[in-house]
Amino acid sequence: MNLKRRYLAALLVFSMILGGVATYTAVQFIQTGTGQAQTQSNQEESNKQASTDGEAQSGDESIGDVLDGLKENNDGELSKIDKAYSLIQEKYVKDTESKELIEGAIQGMLDTLEDPYSTYMDKETMEQFNNSISSSFEGIGTEVSMVDGRVTIVSPFKGSPAEEAGLKPKDQIVSVDGESIEGMDLYDAVLKIRGEKGTTVSLEIDRPGVEENLTIDVKRDTIPIETVYSETKEVNGKKAGVLEVTSFSENTAADFNKKLKELESKNIDGLVIDVRGNPGGLFTAAQDILENFIPKGTPYVQIENSDGEKKRYVSNLEEKKGYPIVVLMDEGSASASEILAGAMKEAGDYELVGTNSFGKGTVQQALPMGDGSNLKLTIYKWLTPDGNWIHEEGIKPTVKVELPEFYYTNPVQIDKTLEYDMNNDKIANVQKMLEGLGYDPGRKDGYFSKETQAAVKQFQKENDLKVTGTINEDTGNKLQSSVVTKVQNKENDTQMQKALDVLFSK
Amino acid sequence: MNLKRRYLAALLVFSMILGGVATYTAVQFIQTGTGQAQTQSNQEESNKQASTDGEAQSGDESIGDVLDGLKENNDGELSKIDKAYSLIQEKYVKDTESKELIEGAIQGMLDTLEDPYSTYMDKETMEQFNNSISSSFEGIGTEVSMVDGRVTIVSPFKGSPAEEAGLKPKDQIVSVDGESIEGMDLYDAVLKIRGEKGTTVSLEIDRPGVEENLTIDVKRDTIPIETVYSETKEVNGKKAGVLEVTSFSENTAADFNKKLKELESKNIDGLVIDVRGNPGGLFTAAQDILENFIPKGTPYVQIENSDGEKKRYVSNLEEKKGYPIVVLMDEGSASASEILAGAMKEAGDYELVGTNSFGKGTVQQALPMGDGSNLKLTIYKWLTPDGNWIHEEGIKPTVKVELPEFYYTNPVQIDKTLEYDMNNDKIANVQKMLEGLGYDPGRKDGYFSKETQAAVKQFQKENDLKVTGTINEDTGNKLQSSVVTKVQNKENDTQMQKALDVLFSK
Repeated sequence: MNLKRRYLAALLVFSMILGGVATYTAVQFIQTGTGQAQTQSNQEESNKQASTDGEAQSGDESIGDVLDGLKENNDGELSKIDKAYSLIQEKYVKDTESKELIEGAIQGMLDTLEDPYSTYMDKETMEQFNNSISSSFEGIGTEVSMVDGRVTIVSPFKGSPAEEAGLKPKDQIVSVDGESIEGMDLYDAVLKIRGEKGTTVSLEIDRPGVEENLTIDVKRDTIPIETVYSETKEVNGKKAGVLEVTSFSENTAADFNKKLKELESKNIDGLVIDVRGNPGGLFTAAQDILENFIPKGTPYVQIENSDGEKKRYVSNLEEKKGYPIVVLMDEGSASASEILAGAMKEAGDYELVGTNSFGKGTVQQALPMGDGSNLKLTIYKWLTPDGNWIHEEGIKPTVKVELPEFYYTNPVQIDKTLEYDMNNDKIANVQKMLEGLGYDPGRKDGYFSKETQAAVKQFQKENDLKVTGTINEDTGNKLQSSVVTKVQNKENDTQMQKALDVLFSK
Repeated sequence: MNLKRRYLAALLVFSMILGGVATYTAVQFIQTGTGQAQTQSNQEESNKQASTDGEAQSGDESIGDVLDGLKENNDGELSKIDKAYSLIQEKYVKDTESKELIEGAIQGMLDTLEDPYSTYMDKETMEQFNNSISSSFEGIGTEVSMVDGRVTIVSPFKGSPAEEAGLKPKDQIVSVDGESIEGMDLYDAVLKIRGEKGTTVSLEIDRPGVEENLTIDVKRDTIPIETVYSETKEVNGKKAGVLEVTSFSENTAADFNKKLKELESKNIDGLVIDVRGNPGGLFTAAQDILENFIPKGTPYVQIENSDGEKKRYVSNLEEKKGYPIVVLMDEGSASASEILAGAMKEAGDYELVGTNSFGKGTVQQALPMGDGSNLKLTIYKWLTPDGNWIHEEGIKPTVKVELPEFYYTNPVQIDKTLEYDMNNDKIANVQKMLEGLGYDPGRKDGYFSKETQAAVKQFQKENDLKVTGTINEDTGNKLQSSVVTKVQNKENDTQMQKALDVLFSK
C-alpha cells in the first residue's frame, strides 16, 4: 500500500463528498416474478446497468405504484405536518423558506430512523453522489499535498491538463484565480482548483529555484479516477501481487479484473488485496470482484429486506485460484470493502490481516423524488455468507496487526514554543512522533518531561537544528516532515509486511 | 445568595425539565385593534391570565384562521413530504411508526430555523413545560443533596409531607419503593421520589446514630415552589435587602412584590436583586417586577415581530425608589433575567454586578396543535430599552466580578489513586480545589508535580488523614466536602460581597 497515494487520492476523489465515508454501497434491486434478484447501478439519468447474474430492468415505476397506493391513507395522518408548516410560516420571528422547511421535514423523518446512511439528497448532493460512484471527476488532474503549510503538487497525472500545462512536482500553489490560498486547508483549496470541464483556472506558482512566481493557466477536463493500483513484491524469492482498491466505483471491477490478469500473467505466487481506508461504493463492484475468488455453491453475500426475506448471491466460478490470497483491511474499510472481506473469510477461507473493519452492514438505494432530489434510503441489510450481520461491529481480522502509533499523529502547528514542564495535547502528539522516529520521549501523555527534553535535543542534533530542547516552528516542521518521510517508506508499513508474511507462511 | 439553596432548588424545581435552561420566556401576545399588546400565560387548558396593563383575551382562534388561510397553498408544496413519507414507510429496511415520522417531520422543519428555542412538544413534554412555569410540583417537599455518594435530606420544607412523615436533615435515602438508589445520580433519584399527588412513596432511610435502617412512607402532595428568597444583610451599619429570584414562574412576581414590601417595612437602605443562575420563565413575571423600579415614560422592554414592528412596554410608576439597587447576575442568568437586568441598567440606570449574562433575546409561544401537542415557537425578539438585541451576546455587567475558580470544580471520583508524575483532568480538578482551599498546588493543568504533592500532604495533615501525598478515595471525599463547605459559606461569595460594596459606595 502506498499510504501517501491513498491519502492524496482520497482528497482528490472524495473532496466533493467529504464526511460521507462508507455510505456509498448503493444499488437498486428489482424483485422479479421469479424471485430472482437483478441489480442496477443507481444513476437516475443514465440507468446504466451493472447486473450480476440476471437481466437488469428499470425500477422506477415501482416507486410510482407505491406512491399511488399510499397517498390516500396519508392525508389524515399528515395533516399535522401541514398545520405545523402553516404555523411556522405565519408565526416564526423570521421569514422562512418553503423549500427549506419541506426539505427539513423530509430530513426530520429520516432522522427518526436513527440511520446515518438514510439521507435526503437535493439536486446538488445527488450530483456529488453520482460523482462519488463514477470513475472520473472534472478538474486539472494532479495529486496535491500540504507541505509546510502550502498546497504543493506531488505529481500531475499522466496526460492530464496539469501535466500538459507544465505543472511540476514540488510546485507550490500560492493563489487560484487571483485569490490567495494561504492559510486555506487542503480540502478547500482542492475545491477551488477543481471545476467544470472546459473552464480555465489560473494558478500562481512558487517553483523552487525560480525567483519570481509563475502564472500557469490550466484548462480543466474530465479526469479519470484510478481506484485500483497494482504492484508486485519479492518476498524470499516468491512474487506477490498487490492490488490496492481505494473505492468501489463504476470502473473498479473491470480495472481490478484487468490488473489481476496482468499480475497472473507475471506468474505471481500469491495475492494481497488491500482495502485499507476503502469506504465502499457500488455493491455490484464488490460482487464482480468476488466472482474471481469464491467458487460456485457457496453464497458470497446475502441481502435481507424489511420482511426478513433473504436472497443469496452465488458465483459461477468453477474453482478457487491456485495461489494463496490475503485481504488487508483496517478500521477505514467499510461497506463494500467489508462485503469483500467477509466473503473472502467465510466463503473463501482466506486470511484477513490488519485491524477490525468499520462496521457498515446496510445497502442504500437512491430513490428519485421527481424533481432531481433523491432519498438515499437503507433498503437492505447485507449478511456475510454465514449469515452474520456485522453492522456497527465490523469484521475481525484473522491476523490482527496495527500500524505504529506515529501513523496516527496530527500535523504539528507551533503557535508558542513548547518547552520543559509544559503540559498539553500538542506535546503528546510530538511525543508520539519522537517515539515513531526512534527517540525515547519518556512519556506520551503531553507532559514535557526531562526525558522528552533529552529526546528533542537528540533529534535537533541529528537534524542540524539548533539544540535547544524546546520545540519551535523549525523543529516542529522538521519533526513533521521526518514523520511524513517515514510514513511514505513502505518498509514501515507493518500491516503490509505481515500480510506478505501470512501469504507465504503456509 | 445561598448557593446551596439555588443548586438544590434547581434540582427540585427543574428536575422535570432538565436541559431546558433559558427556554421558558413564553407568553401569548394578541395584537388588538388599537395596537395595544395584551398578554396571557400560555397554558392551554387553564388559560390563566397574567396580563400586565391591558385585558387578556384568548388567542386560539387566530391560529385557526391562519391554518384555513394557508391550507390551500400548502397542498402542492407539501406533496413532496407525502412522497418521502410513503417511500420510507414502504422501502425502509425496518418497520417505521407513522407517529414518529410525523413528529420527526415537524422537528425537522423546526431544525431548519436553527433556533434551539423552537421545539415540538408532545403531550408529555407539554405537561413538563407547564410544570416548569407553574409555581408548584407534586412530590414530598424536601431539599436533597448528594453527600459522599448518597442522596441526603438537607431539610424538609415547612408543613410538607416530608416533614410530617418525620424525615430529618442528614437522613440518607437508601432505597425508593424497595429499589436501591445506590449509584444513581441525584436527578434520577429525585425523579423516583417525586410522583403524583395522593400516591405514597416508601423510603428506606439510613439515619445517623440509628443502627437499623428505617422505612418511612410519605404521601405525596402538591408542593409550592419558592422562587423568591428574601434576607437582610448589615454592611457597615447599613441594612441591605436581598431578593434572590431563582426563576420567573406564575407566583414569582406576587411573591417578589410581597417580600419587597416586607423589606421596605424594615427600612432597608438598599436592595440587591440576585438573578444568578436564573434561566428565565414567564415574560409577564419580569414585567410585573420591573413595574416596581422603572418609572413611566421610559420603555423597560420592547418586542419586535417578524415584520420588524416594535411594541414598547412602559410602566405606570410615578418615581424611582429612594434607595440604591444593584442587580447581581452571571452567565446562567437568561431570558427574563436578562429583560430585568437590561431594563434596570438602561432604563433605571442601576448597576449590574457579576459576569456577562447568558444571551437569550427571544420570546416563545406554545401553539396548540389540537391533539395535546404544541409547537413552542419563537415569535418575537425582545430588545432592551435602548433597542439592543442581546441574543447570543448577553448583557455586560457594569461591575465585573467572577466567583473563585473552585466554585466551578467537579465532584471528585477516584477510581485509581492519583499520585506524583501522573497527568490527567482529574488532577487538574483537584488542583483547583486545593487552591480554593488555600493550598498551593503549584499548577492547575493536571500534571501532579512535587508542589501538588506537598499541597496534598499539607491538606491531609490538617484534616487528620494519612499523610501520603497521593489522592485516594478518602482524600478525594474530604477534598470534595471541604469545597462544598466553603461554597456554602456566604463569606466566600465574592460576587455578593461586591454587589453590597457597590450598593453603598455612592
